Parts: sequence; structure tokens; C-alpha cells
Amino acid sequence: MSKTSPYLSLIQEELKKNNIPENPSNLYDPIRYFLDMEGKKIRPILTLLSAELFGGTMEQAKHAAVAIEIFHNFTLIHDDIMDAAPIRRGIPTVHNKWNNNIAILSGDVMFVKAYEQLSLCQPNILPELLKTFNKTAIEVCEGQQMDMDFENQDSISQEDYIEMIRLKTSVLLGCALEMGAIICGTSAENKKLIYDFGENIGIAFQIQDDILDLYGDTKKVGKQNGGDVLANKNTLLSILAEMNSNDEQRLELKRLKNEKDATAKIEGVKSIFDDLDIKSKCAEVMQSYYAGALKNFSEIKTKNKNNALLELSNALMNRDF
Amino acid sequence: MSKTSPYLSLIQEELKKNNIPENPSNLYDPIRYFLDMEGKKIRPILTLLSAELFGGTMEQAKHAAVAIEIFHNFTLIHDDIMDAAPIRRGIPTVHNKWNNNIAILSGDVMFVKAYEQLSLCQPNILPELLKTFNKTAIEVCEGQQMDMDFENQDSISQEDYIEMIRLKTSVLLGCALEMGAIICGTSAENKKLIYDFGENIGIAFQIQDDILDLYGDTKKVGKQNGGDVLANKNTLLSILAEMNSNDEQRLELKRLKNEKDATAKIEGVKSIFDDLDIKSKCAEVMQSYYAGALKNFSEIKTKNKNNALLELSNALMNRDF
Repeated sequence: MSKTSPYLSLIQEELKKNNIPENPSNLYDPIRYFLDMEGKKIRPILTLLSAELFGGTMEQAKHAAVAIEIFHNFTLIHDDIMDAAPIRRGIPTVHNKWNNNIAILSGDVMFVKAYEQLSLCQPNILPELLKTFNKTAIEVCEGQQMDMDFENQDSISQEDYIEMIRLKTSVLLGCALEMGAIICGTSAENKKLIYDFGENIGIAFQIQDDILDLYGDTKKVGKQNGGDVLANKNTLLSILAEMNSNDEQRLELKRLKNEKDATAKIEGVKSIFDDLDIKSKCAEVMQSYYAGALKNFSEIKTKNKNNALLELSNALMNRDF
Repeated sequence: MSKTSPYLSLIQEELKKNNIPENPSNLYDPIRYFLDMEGKKIRPILTLLSAELFGGTMEQAKHAAVAIEIFHNFTLIHDDIMDAAPIRRGIPTVHNKWNNNIAILSGDVMFVKAYEQLSLCQPNILPELLKTFNKTAIEVCEGQQMDMDFENQDSISQEDYIEMIRLKTSVLLGCALEMGAIICGTSAENKKLIYDFGENIGIAFQIQDDILDLYGDTKKVGKQNGGDVLANKNTLLSILAEMNSNDEQRLELKRLKNEKDATAKIEGVKSIFDDLDIKSKCAEVMQSYYAGALKNFSEIKTKNKNNALLELSNALMNRDF
């Protein structure tokens, strides 16, 4: 999506209309700081494209789109506290630049701001939009809790891991798309198909993230490979390796968790992953979700079906950054 | 309000219908723990009584009432983190029993649960309810931020202090009452009057809290007087003392902030307050807000006006605990 896209412009314009007050500055400065951050704004653009797919306009969908974007930003502020993340999109996180209390409270206000946007949608569809949005908001929290719980678990099943990424990141893509469909009053089947399309695409993206962290083109990423390995993070790669390794490999992977030399650690893990063909196995799982998404999309029945959503998804799936 | 009141029973019954899931248990156990706490449920009862005042029924107002109660509980969970409060209503706070991250996230889910309740209200009034609720939710956060900011300020004006307590606690009483009025479709004048009644009553209650902390009957409170003085907390008492004291008294009050002997500290402060007649001055401010509330109530025009709200307010104002 180019920076001059009319979709991106509309979202940025609408975000600016929020008129964040000056005072109390400790509450509102972080909100301005966060909303001014550059971002691809994928989620709200999905809502706009979905509305257009089902015969609506960007204008009709803009408030729901902005609600999704603000909600997403709220979750990032709170997640960054919980993950003790110092940096987001190259600049200090809110709790790092201010403090935890300010990050909790300004996050809470952003959450209300998301609902403010929703309440500007057409009253006749407001209950349905709220139902989808509330369900999704709770699922995103469940996903974050599962992710935190996983940090204290030795072994995680592929099923639980996929469920975690589904909740933590994919349901919001599904919700963003379904909101566009709700706004256009399309059929229940179409609503479900576009939601499932988003959920499947989201899971595929997240698995791709896992792969790129270790195997991505470092020149394009702008950072070294293997951050997840260094942090002993559970990813689909590590879970598939655990499932497929023999006793010797499993012991070696366990030993490498405490390896202090970063290069030795990454190379050691990568060498076992390569022996087990983990990258291909992971890509296979990713492709199955992507194929599921394409199938969902093909089954949508709508007049003058356009492929903008498919093109965006393809572009995102073909990134190697 | 007796424990067998039909209002309290309805709220407790509706709260139980939330069907909080089992898993992830780290997310949902704290929510169950908090919602099961005993409480007077003043705010949701105000919504029910307001609906009855304007010719509606408890049934019509129950979802809005429960939304207010859950929202209030959400703010307590997050405020307790920010205030590092170990105990609430005699038992450990969520962040103390679990941890800060769990308290942030389970609070967030409770916030969504409040909106879930709102979205069950009649669709035709949903936009108006959301508008009032969103505005209030943001104001409550502004009040909490002002309260935190005050901790780092040497001197606070009476005006700023009243504005802080208005935002932090009183607007929610106004909102609870206005929701009952919105549900019954009463006039704009009545909506404003019942909102203002709640706001004025709320400010009067809060000032009363300040007075009772130092001058309340210790037998009824079940704790010693002077907690606010010991914590060097800004209250209307301390602000009025600052305004009215001469240089000598002001210096002595400043010195007492660092006094280590608790009894000497409380007695020293109380002695200056007594010389300055601070208790009466504070009670006078409280009475002016209470009188404002009574005036608001008297101006409400509705058929078969009942006095249940006035009786509840009187009972609360006459507590000496």
C-alpha cells in the first residue's frame, strides 16, 4: 500500500480529527505521541477494502476502520508494558518514555476513543458492530494472556500455539474485515467468509513472521536474524523442532537455551532446524492457512467482485522483510 | 440499602449471568474474584432508581446499571495498580494477589464486559447511552491522572481539587443517573438535572470522606483517624488549612509532613486545623454541594415523583463511618 493511497490518507485524516486535548498532559501527550507514529495501517485499510468489496464506500466504513486502528494501538501500549518492550517502531514505547502508570491510563483512554469511533457508525448496525468488536477485544486479551502463560511452560503443542496467534493477532484482522461487511449489510455467509479469510490470512502472516525472524533477508529486515532464538521464544519453528527431533537433538536444543555466545546459539539451533527441514515444514503449515484464506475469498458471492483485498494479501505474503 | 433490597438482588443476579469462562485462568480468575467481592453497589442502584423516577422499570435499566458497576470495578483494578494499593474491601487487590500484568489485562477484559452490557440496551437509545458513557469513562481517567499529578505538586488550589474529585468520582454518579433517564426517554432538562444531582452529591460525598478520615467515629469506622494526614495526602482539609494559615502555622504544617511519630503528627495537624476551624469550613463546602444537589432534584419535573433517590442520598450523607 503506497503512502499516497486514498485509503491511508482517509485513515490519517480521520485519526487527526480526534482532537486530543492538551490537559492533563501526562494523559494526552502519550496518546498524541502514539497516534502520530508512522504505521502501515493494515487493519483499518482492510475494513475500507471490505466495505468496497461488498458494494459500500470508504466513507461509510471510516469510523469502524478508525475504531479498529485505535483499538490496535491501545493493545500495543498495554502489551508493551506487559512485555517490558523498550522500543516500538524504532522509538521508545509509552511506558519507557513516561512510566507504567501513565501507559496504563493513556491506554485505557485510547480504548474509550475506539468505542467513540464505533458509536459514530450507523445506529441500525451498531449492536451488531459492537457484538463483533467486543467479542474480538476479549479474544485479543485471551491471546495475550496465553502468550504470557507460554513463557512459563516448557512445552507447547502446535495446536495451542496456533490458537494463541489466532486470538492474539488474527481475530482482529477477521473483525476488521467483518465490520466492512456488516456496514454493507451483506449476507451472513459472506460475513463469515470474509471473517474467516482474515483469520486465516492472519495466522499465515504470523507464521511467516516466525520464519522471517530466522531466515529473512537481513539487508531488507535491517536487523540480524535469530532474535526469537536468542530470546528462547516459542515459535512455530521451535515447536515443530521439538516435535520432530530425536533425543540427542532435543538435548542439544535444551542445552542451547543456556548458550551465552549469540552466534553459536543461533548457528547451533539453525543447524538442527536445517537437519529436520523445519523451515519447509513451517512454510507448509503457513501455506495451508493461506490456501484456506484463498478458498474463503473465492466463495464470497458479491456483484462486481474486485480483487483489491487479494492483491494486498499477496503483497504482504510476498514480503521478505 | 438493605442486603435484601430488590435492587441489590437484581444487580447481583445480572452480574452472575456474565458466565466468566474458566480459561485462560490467569485472565478470568481475577475477574471472578473481583466481581464476587461484596459491595454496596451504589452506582448501579442509582441507575435503577433513576429509571423508576422517570417512569421506567428496573428491568429496562438493568443492563446499563450492570455496565456502570463493571466499569467501576475495572477502574478500581487499574487504579489499585497505579496507587500500589495492597488491600481493597479488606482483601488483597488483584495486582497484589496475582501480578501487575494480570491486573492490567483482566481489567481490560472487564472494560469490554461493561460495553457488552451496554450493547444489550435498547438499540434506539444505544448511541446516546454510549456517548454519555464514553465521555464519563474518559473523564474518570482524567481525574485519576490529575490525582496522580497532584502527588508531585506542593500546592493545590481548592478549585483544582474539586475538579479532580468531580472527574475521578462524581461524574460516574451523574452518568449512572443520566443513563436511567435516557432509558426512559425523559426531557433534556430532566437528564441534565439528574446528572447534576449526581455530580453534586458525588462531590459532597467525597468531601465528607475527607472529613471522616480525620474526624469520623473510630468505633464505627473500625480504623484509626488520620490516615490521610499520615500519608501526607492532599484533601480539602489540608487545602483549606494551607489557604487559611498564617506563616507560623504554615511552617509547622510543613514540618509535620516529616514528623515520624504518628500520634504527634496527627495531633499536631489536628490542633492547627482546630485553631483554623477547618472542619466547619470543609463541612460548609460540602453542604453547598449537597444543597445544590437538592435544588437539582427539586427542579426535576416528572409524574408521581418518588423520593427514593433523595432517601438514599440522605442515608449516605448521614453516615458517620
